[in-house]
Amino acid sequence: MIGNLPSLDKLIHEFSKLPGIGPKSAARLAYHVLKSSQEFADDFSSAITEVKENISVCENCFSYTEEESICRICSDPKRTDEAICVVESPSDISSIESSGVFRGRYHVLHGVISPLDGIGPQDLKIAPLLSKIKDSLATDAPVKEVILALDADLEGDTTVLYLAKILGEMGLQTSRIAHGVPIGGDIDYIDHRTLGRAIENRIQI
Amino acid sequence: MIGNLPSLDKLIHEFSKLPGIGPKSAARLAYHVLKSSQEFADDFSSAITEVKENISVCENCFSYTEEESICRICSDPKRTDEAICVVESPSDISSIESSGVFRGRYHVLHGVISPLDGIGPQDLKIAPLLSKIKDSLATDAPVKEVILALDADLEGDTTVLYLAKILGEMGLQTSRIAHGVPIGGDIDYIDHRTLGRAIENRIQI
Repeated sequence: MIGNLPSLDKLIHEFSKLPGIGPKSAARLAYHVLKSSQEFADDFSSAITEVKENISVCENCFSYTEEESICRICSDPKRTDEAICVVESPSDISSIESSGVFRGRYHVLHGVISPLDGIGPQDLKIAPLLSKIKDSLATDAPVKEVILALDADLEGDTTVLYLAKILGEMGLQTSRIAHGVPIGGDIDYIDHRTLGRAIENRIQI
Repeated sequence: MIGNLPSLDKLIHEFSKLPGIGPKSAARLAYHVLKSSQEFADDFSSAITEVKENISVCENCFSYTEEESICRICSDPKRTDEAICVVESPSDISSIESSGVFRGRYHVLHGVISPLDGIGPQDLKIAPLLSKIKDSLATDAPVKEVILALDADLEGDTTVLYLAKILGEMGLQTSRIAHGVPIGGDIDYIDHRTLGRAIENRIQI
């Protein structure tokens, strides 16, 4: 860092707050911005402002939306209300959407149960999920299946068990996405936990 | 990328223009900005704007400065005018300054001679360096030594040879920083070119 360039030091400091950006990378990125065109700096700066200004959280599924209050997926009449896919964060939705397989609704928990980090069910968007499902059961478009698309780590497993118990008591069909060897993946290079899970969850052919 | 969030896509696009940031990292950084506080987004956005607004190129040494037109090192009366250290980019100055060994002036070339990239001497700040030295020779504080602190790669070596020839003809003492095994570096792990250079440049004890 150059001591007599406070503006550059400030930008380095802001870059270093980003995940995975250390002090050396932050300095390299800040120098890049300084060296680049005024147009790039203006675009970059306004993109940061606009992402906070234009994007809000959907009141129904808690994903991100640029619409007024309900996101495009929640307000899409062509999607079925029968299935809800529960995910940890909004970015998971784009991954699942790109698979093109799921045509129901989503619900974002904004985290998973993690006792070590002090995150319990009350810190997640679980209550709105349950009340949304309860409300739907009284209508002519009730939720029939809840797909839990959470990671296969300790926190994901804990959250799946917690939700499966409550949803089961409500009489709903609950499923979890399959974890196993990726398509095109080489069995030689797959870690033993994934391979173990793939063998446990083997499918009769 | 989420197709229905153009503001997020724009920020991902801007992040991916930075060096070493691929599409996946860009998405992760953009989501981080989206999730972080309004205060962070404001600070980050204004830091980018201010770095371009407040920082200009010093008219004398071509380093960056937040002063009016001449940088703090060029206008420091405590530094000697006898030695000029020539570097490739402004960020090199902060590295050399942190060593605390050099107390002369600097000159930034803003690049090195690289015929493969079509960069010749006329594309660098070489002419202002030579005229600055020539002017000094007529004063009572002439430049006596030029230290070339350039990288030990093909482009650096070419630039060193080019400058050493011209500066030698002008009767100036020209030197190049030593390249060798880093202090604390283990000889076992040093690449053979560095080690070869360290042996060639061995110092009698």
